[in-house]
Amino acid sequence: MPIVDMSWSGWGDPERAERLPESVTDLLRELLGVRAEPAQPVKLAEIEPPAARPVAGLLADVVGEEHVRTDDETRVRHTRGKSTPDLIRIRAGDVRTAPDAVVLPGSHEEVAAVLARCAEHRIAVVPFGGGTSVVGGLTPETAGFAGVVALDLRRLDRLVGVDTVSRTATLQAGLRGPQAERLLNEEGYTLGHFPQSFEWASIGGFAAARSAGQASAGYGRFDEMVVGLTLATAHGTLTTGRSPKSAAGPDLRQLVLGSEGALGVITDVTVRIRPLPETHAYEGWLFGSLSEGVTAVRALAQDGPLPTVLRLSDETETMIGLARPDELGERNGGGGCLAVCGYDGTAVEVAERRAKVRAVLEALDGRYQGEEPGESWARGRFAAPYLRDALLDAGVLAETLETAGFWSNLSRLYDAVRLTLAHELSSSVVMCHVSHVYPAGASLYFTVVTAQGEEPLERWAHAKAAVSDAILDAGGTISHHHGVGVDHRDWYAREAGPLGVAALRAVKDRLDPEGIMNPGVLIPGEG
Amino acid sequence: MPIVDMSWSGWGDPERAERLPESVTDLLRELLGVRAEPAQPVKLAEIEPPAARPVAGLLADVVGEEHVRTDDETRVRHTRGKSTPDLIRIRAGDVRTAPDAVVLPGSHEEVAAVLARCAEHRIAVVPFGGGTSVVGGLTPETAGFAGVVALDLRRLDRLVGVDTVSRTATLQAGLRGPQAERLLNEEGYTLGHFPQSFEWASIGGFAAARSAGQASAGYGRFDEMVVGLTLATAHGTLTTGRSPKSAAGPDLRQLVLGSEGALGVITDVTVRIRPLPETHAYEGWLFGSLSEGVTAVRALAQDGPLPTVLRLSDETETMIGLARPDELGERNGGGGCLAVCGYDGTAVEVAERRAKVRAVLEALDGRYQGEEPGESWARGRFAAPYLRDALLDAGVLAETLETAGFWSNLSRLYDAVRLTLAHELSSSVVMCHVSHVYPAGASLYFTVVTAQGEEPLERWAHAKAAVSDAILDAGGTISHHHGVGVDHRDWYAREAGPLGVAALRAVKDRLDPEGIMNPGVLIPGEG
Repeated sequence: MPIVDMSWSGWGDPERAERLPESVTDLLRELLGVRAEPAQPVKLAEIEPPAARPVAGLLADVVGEEHVRTDDETRVRHTRGKSTPDLIRIRAGDVRTAPDAVVLPGSHEEVAAVLARCAEHRIAVVPFGGGTSVVGGLTPETAGFAGVVALDLRRLDRLVGVDTVSRTATLQAGLRGPQAERLLNEEGYTLGHFPQSFEWASIGGFAAARSAGQASAGYGRFDEMVVGLTLATAHGTLTTGRSPKSAAGPDLRQLVLGSEGALGVITDVTVRIRPLPETHAYEGWLFGSLSEGVTAVRALAQDGPLPTVLRLSDETETMIGLARPDELGERNGGGGCLAVCGYDGTAVEVAERRAKVRAVLEALDGRYQGEEPGESWARGRFAAPYLRDALLDAGVLAETLETAGFWSNLSRLYDAVRLTLAHELSSSVVMCHVSHVYPAGASLYFTVVTAQGEEPLERWAHAKAAVSDAILDAGGTISHHHGVGVDHRDWYAREAGPLGVAALRAVKDRLDPEGIMNPGVLIPGEG
Repeated sequence: MPIVDMSWSGWGDPERAERLPESVTDLLRELLGVRAEPAQPVKLAEIEPPAARPVAGLLADVVGEEHVRTDDETRVRHTRGKSTPDLIRIRAGDVRTAPDAVVLPGSHEEVAAVLARCAEHRIAVVPFGGGTSVVGGLTPETAGFAGVVALDLRRLDRLVGVDTVSRTATLQAGLRGPQAERLLNEEGYTLGHFPQSFEWASIGGFAAARSAGQASAGYGRFDEMVVGLTLATAHGTLTTGRSPKSAAGPDLRQLVLGSEGALGVITDVTVRIRPLPETHAYEGWLFGSLSEGVTAVRALAQDGPLPTVLRLSDETETMIGLARPDELGERNGGGGCLAVCGYDGTAVEVAERRAKVRAVLEALDGRYQGEEPGESWARGRFAAPYLRDALLDAGVLAETLETAGFWSNLSRLYDAVRLTLAHELSSSVVMCHVSHVYPAGASLYFTVVTAQGEEPLERWAHAKAAVSDAILDAGGTISHHHGVGVDHRDWYAREAGPLGVAALRAVKDRLDPEGIMNPGVLIPGEG
C-alpha cells in the first residue's frame, strides 16, 4: 500500500481544498491579465516515475522489507516539496527527481544504519519529514550517485519524555506538528509552535530548517526552544544539550539547527514546553500606514509587553484581506494596515497584557477593531496554502518569499522587494506582513500573485533571482524561516561569505565525507 | 614604557587591594588548618622571562614599531590569566610561558595582517583582551612554534556606531567593560553586561568566552546580545549578522561565540543595547533552605516576572556572608539562604515588577529582608576577586568553579560537586550560588577555600579534575560562563563527544590551517 499523506500535487488534505468564489477568480484573472485556461493537474495514476535503481534491496535488512517502498505512488509523493515551482512541475507530471526508494526507519539506530549503508554504496539520502519545504530542500543534486533514497521519518513519532520540573520534552523527529502538540497537551503542556505548515510539517523539519511559528512573539522561534538534540550520521552520533546555556565552546546545537539534512539526520530534539494556556484571545488593530504600524509593533518588541501573536499586514494585504482569509473577497475599503494581536495565558494574565498592549498601541495611533479581525485570522491561519492551489487552478501563480532585517533597515528592504517584483512581474499584486518581531528587527513575509503565463517556471525563476539579489543588496537575510534548500543556495553563499561557506563545508566533509546527505542543499561547493 | 594594566600578580587595581580583618584571617586559618606562613609574591622587577625569540622584528612593519613590545614587564603582564593556579605560579615568579612579544594592532586590518604574518612564520598567537581568563585561555600549548605573540586588542577601543532605531551598537573588541558602558551611557544606552570581571574584561573576551553577567536575568547572556560580529583570520574575514534572526543555515555567530581565539580574532561585535534605566533597586529575600530558594527562583524563571538581577546563595555562602562582601565577618547566625533581587527600569516598571516578584516569593515562603542586603551585594559585586588575593596572602587557596544544568538535575549536580570537593579537600569550605536562571535550568557557581598546603597546585589540580569528572558524571556542562581554555579541554572533549570535536576541529583546520590560533585552547586533537 502506498504511503498517503498530503495531496501529492498541492497542499494538505484534499478533502479540505478551498474553492475560490467565482467573483474573486474573475477579479484576479482580470486584474492580473490571466488569459489562457490553465492546465489542470495530470492524474496521479498516469504519472510514471523513472525506473527505480536497485537500492531497495540494499536497505531491506536494515529496516525490514516492509519499510522500504518502491511503489510509484509512494515515490511520487516523496518527489518534491511544496514551493509553487514544485507544484507546477508535479502538476505537469514531472517526477524526474523521484527517489529510487522511500525508506522508513523506526529508530535512531536504524537511521544511523541506513546512513552507514548508503554511505557505503554512495546512495544520496534526502531526509523527509513533512515534505513541506518551499525552498527546494527535497530536491538535492544527485547526479553521480548510485541511487537516491527518501528517508521518511514518520515512524519516529514518540514523545520520549516530559521533564515537568525543567519544562522540557524530548520529541522524536518524525512527529508532525499536531501529533506533537496532542501528546504534549495530554500532559498539560504546549510547544506553542504553529507555523503555517503546522498541520503537516515535522519536529525534525522545524529544527533542520529553523522554523518560526505564528506565535513566535510569545513562544519564540523553534531554534530558541531547542535545548538539546541528537544527530545521526553515517559515522556516529552527535548529542548535545547538557544545560539550557553553556560556555563550553561554540553552541553545537546552533550548528545542527538549520543544517537542512546536509550534515546528518536529526532524530530527536529536547524542547522547552509551557503549561497549556487557559485561554486565547485575538484582536485587530488598524494603523494609518505601514510605517505607523511598524513603529507600533517595534515599540512592543523593544519595550513590551509582547502579545503571543503579533502580525501587521501592509496596505495591500489588508485591502485584499489575505490577513483574514475567511473573508477573502469581502469589501475592505477603509484602507490602512491591519495588525492582529493574539494572547495566550491565564485569564488574568491575558487581560493585563491586553490592557498594556492597548495603551501602547492607542498612544501610537492604533485604532482598536475588536476581536473579530483577530479571530478571523486565527480561524484561517493554516488555510492560505490551500488557496494557492485554487489560484493555480485558475491560472494564477501565487508564491511567498521572506526575509528579515534590522528595524532601521526594514523600509529599505520592503521597498527593494516590492520595486523589484513590480519591475520583474508586470501585472502582479504583492502583499506583505511583518509576523516575527525581535528587539533589534523583524521579518517581512511577501505574497506575490501574478498570471502564470506561458512559461511560469522561467518567469518566476527570473523574478525570484532578481528579488533575492535585491534582498541581499538591501542588507537583508535570504531567509527568515523558509530556509536555504537548493533554491537559495547561491544567495546563501553570498550571505555567509567565503569563510562562512568554507567553515560549513569543512564540517560537512568531516561528518558526511561521502557527501550523501542532501547533496547540493544548503552548502555550496567552495571556490 | 611597559603596558601597565591590572595587578600583574593578582586582581585588578593594586590601589584597591582588599585587606582582610585579622579576625577573619585568624578564623579561616584555624578553620582550614593553615599552618605555614605563605609565600608572598616575588618582586616584579626581579622576574626574568625567558629570552625573547626574534619575532618582534617580523611584526614591526605591520603595526608600527611602537606597537610591538618586548620589555620584560609587558611580557610578564601578558603571561597568564587570573585563575588561582595562574596567580600562584606568577606570584612565585614562574613566567616560563611568557610571550616573546606583545603586539598591539590598531584596526581589524592590522589584526588580519598580524595573523597572516604569524601564519607565514608559524608563530603562535594568543588573543589578549582583558587578560581575565580563569580557565587557562591565555596559556596555549606552544611547543614547536617559532615564537609566541600576545595580541593585545586594547587599541581597538571605539564605539563604531549606535543604531537607535534597532537598538544595537557596534563595539570594537578591545573595549573594556567600563569603557564600553561609558560610551553607551553617553548616548543614553546601556549594554547591561556586568560579569564579575566587568571592570577589566573586554568586549571581545565576553564574546569569545560566552560571558554571562550578573544582570543576565534582565539583559541576557552576552551571546544572546550579539546580533553580528567580525572575525579576522589569517586567510580572510568572516562577517555575520544581516538580521537579528535568520533561517539561512546554521547560525555562524554561534560558531564564533565561544571559540576562545582558536578560530580567529573577533574584532568587533554588534550587540543589543537598552535605554539607560531610570532607576535601580535591590532587595534581599531569605529562604529556609536551598531547595525552597531554588523552587522560588525557578518559579520566577518559568512564569515570571524576572528581576534584572537574581541570585540565590546556599546556606554556607549565606552564613559566611560572601554574598555580602562588605559585611564579611559580621555575624549572620540566622541560617537559611539569601537571595538578592535587583531591578532596572523606570520607577513605575520597577515598582510594578517588585510587587509581582514579592507576591511570588512570599507565596513560596520567602521572607523579605529589605533593601540593605541587596544594596550590600551591589556595592561589593566586583570585589570578590580582590578578596582572593588577600586570602592567598594569608595562605588560603580560594578558587571558583561553575556549571549549569536543567532544573530537575540541579540538586544532583550541587551534591556531586560538594561531595567531591569534601572528599578531595579535607578542611575546606565550599559555598555556592545560583546566579543565572533560564526557563529550563540554571547555573551553579561554587567558591572553594582551603589551605594552600605544601603543594597547592598539585592539590588543586587533583581536586579540580575530580570535580570536573563529577560535573560531567552528574549531567552538567563543564562551564556555564568561564569557558574551556586549556584547563577544561579534556572534559569539553567528553561533553562535545567525538563528532562534536571533529566538527570543530574541521572548522579550525579550515580557518586556521597553520594552527597558530591559541593552540591547545578549547579544541582537542582528534582521536
